[in-house]
Amino acid sequence: MTSSENPKNPHHFNVFAAACPSRKLLNDVTRRWSILVLASLLDGSLRFGQIRERVDGISDRMLSATLGALAEDRLIAKDDAAGTYSLTEPGRQIARQSLELFDSLYLALDEIVDARQAGDDVAGSSAGVAGVAAPGGAAVSDGAVS
Amino acid sequence: MTSSENPKNPHHFNVFAAACPSRKLLNDVTRRWSILVLASLLDGSLRFGQIRERVDGISDRMLSATLGALAEDRLIAKDDAAGTYSLTEPGRQIARQSLELFDSLYLALDEIVDARQAGDDVAGSSAGVAGVAAPGGAAVSDGAVS
Repeated sequence: MTSSENPKNPHHFNVFAAACPSRKLLNDVTRRWSILVLASLLDGSLRFGQIRERVDGISDRMLSATLGALAEDRLIAKDDAAGTYSLTEPGRQIARQSLELFDSLYLALDEIVDARQAGDDVAGSSAGVAGVAAPGGAAVSDGAVS
Repeated sequence: MTSSENPKNPHHFNVFAAACPSRKLLNDVTRRWSILVLASLLDGSLRFGQIRERVDGISDRMLSATLGALAEDRLIAKDDAAGTYSLTEPGRQIARQSLELFDSLYLALDEIVDARQAGDDVAGSSAGVAGVAAPGGAAVSDGAVS
């Protein structure tokens, strides 16, 4: 593939290649918590405690490590004076795509739940996320952070 | 948030909530290798060895475990007669969004490399992926799988 064939990817990055720097970036972005921390900053700068509040379940230690790794990858920046973290422009692009990925997860769960309810039970009734999501859509109404 | 506010998410899934089934699905999808295996199947059904070839660096053991987890989540299905794996419709949606995420990684790397070359070196010259990607776009031309 050449630059002219894919104007979005002029540097020939290929995440399927183990040695490509985009593979490391993918691993960093999809490391447990990273993608949620990135997405939490889409609405604007947040302080450490505000991010911890948005990303339910993250520990101080994990949040600190995650922020450090994302800053090293230049996807977020810290404003030391204000004590806040914000997305860089590259980080914002990735965070936006992460939200789209989340939407596809929600749609997938809807379809998986619907398939279960229709009796399409080929993969086993308690397997994977389908078991967690059942019955219907009621499973998360209490636990959800709004 | 109500269903009427977000028609894409009628079941009130919220990946930021630790107890939401979408959080488990996110963790499954972004587990090391899963997202690459999903994306590798976008062009059509593949045999085990073909997936291993596309996803550079994955071991037989990891590929086997990844395929099992994705099948449990009903994102892929195995055709036992043909010996091939293919995406389910929910899996296809997630795989498509994964490709978009990869594109945002490529763009981010371009911007990070450009910023380095422009002398914008606030985060340290060898930090994170920026150090790996430099110099210019030449870093992956040999290692890339086409």
